[in-house]
Amino acid sequence: MDYYSHQINRLVEELMGLPGIGSKSAQRLAFHILNMPKENAEKLSNAIIEARNHVQYCKECYTLTDNELCPICSNDRRDHRTIMVVENSRDLAAYEKTGKYEGVYHVLHGAISPMLGIGPADIRLKELLMRLQKEADEVIIATNSSLEGETTAMYISKLIKPTGIKVTRIASGVPVGGDLEYIDEVTLLRALEGRREL
Amino acid sequence: MDYYSHQINRLVEELMGLPGIGSKSAQRLAFHILNMPKENAEKLSNAIIEARNHVQYCKECYTLTDNELCPICSNDRRDHRTIMVVENSRDLAAYEKTGKYEGVYHVLHGAISPMLGIGPADIRLKELLMRLQKEADEVIIATNSSLEGETTAMYISKLIKPTGIKVTRIASGVPVGGDLEYIDEVTLLRALEGRREL
Repeated sequence: MDYYSHQINRLVEELMGLPGIGSKSAQRLAFHILNMPKENAEKLSNAIIEARNHVQYCKECYTLTDNELCPICSNDRRDHRTIMVVENSRDLAAYEKTGKYEGVYHVLHGAISPMLGIGPADIRLKELLMRLQKEADEVIIATNSSLEGETTAMYISKLIKPTGIKVTRIASGVPVGGDLEYIDEVTLLRALEGRREL
Repeated sequence: MDYYSHQINRLVEELMGLPGIGSKSAQRLAFHILNMPKENAEKLSNAIIEARNHVQYCKECYTLTDNELCPICSNDRRDHRTIMVVENSRDLAAYEKTGKYEGVYHVLHGAISPMLGIGPADIRLKELLMRLQKEADEVIIATNSSLEGETTAMYISKLIKPTGIKVTRIASGVPVGGDLEYIDEVTLLRALEGRREL
């Protein structure tokens, strides 16, 4: 990319390192940044480095947060005996947006994937088991409905069942508003298996 | 977004200010950054602020560059008497990628758009006219083939013609590999108008 200068190339290359950002998007973002007021570029740059430097894992649920405990784990009004296990902090955020879940979370930071060489020791499973030694009524497994998510769910349920703690799995099926015609067969079969009496 | 901590929210909000980055993408990017090795996050942060602070307009063609003159304007082997007028530095890069254009450029940083209230004084037109007072054989207008790009092309051509300098416009027509069936009527008519004898 000789037609750009060194600093611009460097910025484009750094942006291309981000997920989902290809060469064209990186160029668009770079020129947007170059045309920003200086203070806005500084705010963006500082937000990146400060978030990266200050954010740590919540010592209870392992979500990413500013303090020792995340806002959810430090909230007394949450039900600390119901723990929802999710793959990452974004999935946690997705359930928080529903505004209806009152329990707490446990963030695995991944899912078991023999394909990618990710085993049980590579995700925050040991930490979950440690937590369960304290007090828990129910563990709700909310890993994704992918092969990795399902494998992880099975693995966790086998680990926890002997402890006598209730283990549940979120339902899979047809999404609300989903048109059957466009939904894959596996989901349709899951929805059938998971049918409930009305 | 109470479920994220302050620093994460701040980063997500800054990223959402970038073009084409919505709430979901911003969250994905933010968590990617938070999971980066510290030195990579620093490199990204520094690339942003350094590019923004050091990059300036080339004093000849007004593209964004590190130095007084961009690599193209400071290259003696380029034909400095042929000037291609483009809307922005990304369009310049697109033509540079062809590797076949040997002239220089002039970057307008926009196009005339009465809809958006962008007039001739808001783009680098005065600077183009100043440049033409020196020496030029041909001005190739390569603004986009949009309403704004065409308006700008017409405006520039009217300005330059009285000076006696040759003014040309890049061809519009069917893209190479394009299937006529899927091409809009305006483009098909343009291609017909621009037909050449074989």
